[in-house]
Amino acid sequence: MTEPLRLGIAGLGTVGVGIVRIIQKHAALLEQRAGRPVVITGVSARTKTKNRDVDLSDYAWEDDPVTLAQRPDIDVFVEVMGGSEGPAKDATEAAIAAGKDVVSANKALLAIHGQALAESAEAAGRVIRFEAAVAGGIPVVKALTEGLAGNDITRIMGVMNGSCNYILTRMEDAGLSYDAVFEEANQLGYLEADPELDVGGIDAGHKLALLSSIAFGTQVDFDAVELEGIGAVSIDDIRHAADMGFKIKLLGVAQLTGRGLEQRMSPCLVPDSSPLGQLQGGTNMVVLEGDAASQIVLRGPGAGEGPTASAIMGDVMDIARGLRISTFGQPATGLRKARAARAAVPAPYYLRMKLLDKPGALAKIAHALGEAGISIDRMRQYEHGDASAPVLIVTHKTTRTALDEALAAFPATGVVDSTPVAIRIEAV
Amino acid sequence: MTEPLRLGIAGLGTVGVGIVRIIQKHAALLEQRAGRPVVITGVSARTKTKNRDVDLSDYAWEDDPVTLAQRPDIDVFVEVMGGSEGPAKDATEAAIAAGKDVVSANKALLAIHGQALAESAEAAGRVIRFEAAVAGGIPVVKALTEGLAGNDITRIMGVMNGSCNYILTRMEDAGLSYDAVFEEANQLGYLEADPELDVGGIDAGHKLALLSSIAFGTQVDFDAVELEGIGAVSIDDIRHAADMGFKIKLLGVAQLTGRGLEQRMSPCLVPDSSPLGQLQGGTNMVVLEGDAASQIVLRGPGAGEGPTASAIMGDVMDIARGLRISTFGQPATGLRKARAARAAVPAPYYLRMKLLDKPGALAKIAHALGEAGISIDRMRQYEHGDASAPVLIVTHKTTRTALDEALAAFPATGVVDSTPVAIRIEAV
Ligand SMILES: NC(=O)c1ccc[n+]([C@@H]2O[C@H](COP(=O)([O-])OP(=O)(O)OC[C@H]3O[C@@H](n4cnc5c(N)ncnc54)[C@H](OP(=O)(O)O)[C@@H]3O)[C@@H](O)[C@H]2O)c1
Ligand SMILES: NC(=O)c1ccc[n+]([C@@H]2O[C@H](COP(=O)([O-])OP(=O)(O)OC[C@H]3O[C@@H](n4cnc5c(N)ncnc54)[C@H](OP(=O)(O)O)[C@@H]3O)[C@@H](O)[C@H]2O)c1
Repeated sequence: MTEPLRLGIAGLGTVGVGIVRIIQKHAALLEQRAGRPVVITGVSARTKTKNRDVDLSDYAWEDDPVTLAQRPDIDVFVEVMGGSEGPAKDATEAAIAAGKDVVSANKALLAIHGQALAESAEAAGRVIRFEAAVAGGIPVVKALTEGLAGNDITRIMGVMNGSCNYILTRMEDAGLSYDAVFEEANQLGYLEADPELDVGGIDAGHKLALLSSIAFGTQVDFDAVELEGIGAVSIDDIRHAADMGFKIKLLGVAQLTGRGLEQRMSPCLVPDSSPLGQLQGGTNMVVLEGDAASQIVLRGPGAGEGPTASAIMGDVMDIARGLRISTFGQPATGLRKARAARAAVPAPYYLRMKLLDKPGALAKIAHALGEAGISIDRMRQYEHGDASAPVLIVTHKTTRTALDEALAAFPATGVVDSTPVAIRIEAV
Repeated sequence: MTEPLRLGIAGLGTVGVGIVRIIQKHAALLEQRAGRPVVITGVSARTKTKNRDVDLSDYAWEDDPVTLAQRPDIDVFVEVMGGSEGPAKDATEAAIAAGKDVVSANKALLAIHGQALAESAEAAGRVIRFEAAVAGGIPVVKALTEGLAGNDITRIMGVMNGSCNYILTRMEDAGLSYDAVFEEANQLGYLEADPELDVGGIDAGHKLALLSSIAFGTQVDFDAVELEGIGAVSIDDIRHAADMGFKIKLLGVAQLTGRGLEQRMSPCLVPDSSPLGQLQGGTNMVVLEGDAASQIVLRGPGAGEGPTASAIMGDVMDIARGLRISTFGQPATGLRKARAARAAVPAPYYLRMKLLDKPGALAKIAHALGEAGISIDRMRQYEHGDASAPVLIVTHKTTRTALDEALAAFPATGVVDSTPVAIRIEAV
């Protein structure tokens, strides 16, 4: 085990350069810890001539990441280019076919092609590791796959997109509208080139789907994630929620229920005194619940050069130290196809709507809810200057199906003057 | 790798029975995840006839844990008896000598004999794993040793004794004295047979020493941990701290400084809005800081049957999956002996004392502090009915040495009417 572990790094952007920096700075430390040197043999990016502020002269350059993946002088292919198709997919497949282990930060690729990639890697006796793909610098894949390997996992939850959490906390702190903060975040470079990946919950949904697979022994199924972005969250909702002791978070929840696997990524109200409620800015938090360990909470930076490169290096060091574990914690061929269950677990809901100033308006709404089997926990009517007044309702626990039934009956009451906003309240 | 991994479990108390329960309940899940069955071959405890509420009839019984450790039909010796000397030490040494891997929950044993045990295990090609020994169910040893293996660790901090945190938060919530809550905790069975292990900070100190070794590549050195228990924390201090926006926690801090390795386990003031400040009851929290990952916070149950057994099983599953890592993350023979540095890093301090009601009393104290190079950040004098009044001072950053110099000069001022209480304020 004193042979060096040789890396080929495809992608020299934020994450790739971070990896190069760590390996150059900590060569001795890494060797001490791994019991063998960890070295870079080759690199690839789109533009060879770009100044990347690191010395790459000792490494072979490949224009084509597929060629890099196939080089006989690399042991591990590190994929930090991104994208669920194209070069990232081709090069990852090429690496596995060429008998390389793979370390990836690419949640999009793995959330969509993870099952196929894991099957082919395992058939070839290779490993794929992806700590950096979920929650940046937080070693959550490791905690779940290894640390909690003795647990039946009962639920996982998480705030796993720092940009969304930044937007939501900034709206609250500065009293700004969604649109204003969205603009600000975009200017600051906090959002992906396609911002919908962030604010639409897609990026976080990818991460949730990956964790679900490990947690529940099921095939990663991103399409089954119920996705709802933060675009419809208004400053009013944030303020009303705060009045009642809640924060609004883009929260991922996955759990196996009698009706199937529930995976949701959507805005939720969480108690403001809970660890999730207290999470400010771009920080990520993942909550893992197991039958033995009860609840483990992990918190840390969800992105950025250092944290993401740190996660990549954790995986690289595992491989250097000889850990060979199935991609999703058990052989991919044994992962079950889970039935998708839409918000199967009942919860209280926060409802906001405007009611016309008519006698009996509230009673009509309460009746419509009651008809759907939903009882009201608290209700609050706000001051109004015109013909309709904002009303907030917190329901007792109900299913999303029952709620949708009630919402469908609202127009017929003739007293609702806005499209009602419904946000789930998650017990965290 | 389809051979079963065979365990010998020494100790069938809280933790041992928890392990038996997990293995009986999750046999299929464990096999799926590890790729091989995980089975119990033999067990040992003091009293064979004790009813332990689990079926042990399939396992060989050994009266002597040393004999269990030497059985040819076990691969891993699981030590969950406890104690830094005697049977736990003898059996662990016997297991290593007999070529077994060891999984242990025993912080006392490892904090005192960890270096020698690691050296002999590594010489024999065996591993010792001890996730359960630090912070119960939280996979913090794993996060630090593996997840953050690419980082130069800059600081670790933690609340790692649930009983102390229970006592401190209960004092605040119920407005009770230390003695009253201590009695209560003792009655509830929250304290060790020798409560000094908990409230004296010894147990938490053991844990900190273990994490320090991994973090800084130094030989575990429990004797160098500056220990201060919570026995001197009064309800007054808790209240005054709260008034100023702080909580008092038994906080462990370890960091490498220019003057050596600083390891402290002592009551500290931490901002009440920080994750550490918000930690209630018996929960544990560990903060890991690295040059790449920045700050990772882990939170979870610090003890109890399920969480501790979960941690043991994490280690067992690692071994079943073939992970072979040095006890402290790098070969034990390469660990440095660190020079111990006493509170080398300057910090603000909270001071509480009674001052006689004499003109210029405050000025005299300010002068004594100034002579030691300490400036005052805030000062608060409380209402008084008698001849002396409580005074609180928060200093600017200073060293413990300078502070002790100032405290030594207080009696000569002739205005101090109580032994001053000094508690460090930790930036967390
Ligand atoms: N940034 C984060 O904080 C973070 C956190 C977690 C996960 N991730 C994931 O990590 C991956 C990389 O992210 P990043 O932020 O480092 O991206 P980035 O800064 O945009 O860098 C992407 C790199 O890939 C290279 N590249 C793109 N297409 C290529 C091709 N066809 N052939 C060769 N090289 C190609 C680019 O080359 P040029 O430089 O020549 O254009 C660039 O160096 C993504 O999967 C992302 O989701 C990122
Ligand atoms: N409890 C926790 O939450 C927790 C958390 C973290 C770490 N730990 C650590 O885990 C270890 C075990 O803790 P525990 O709470 O499970 O202790 P426990 O409930 O007191 O159980 C100790 C067990 O060891 C057995 N034992 C003691 N001396 C023995 C001997 N000479 N030969 C054979 N067996 C012997 C006892 O046998 P009998 O039952 O016959 O008396 C008992 O089954 C300790 O190192 C502790 O620090 C515990």
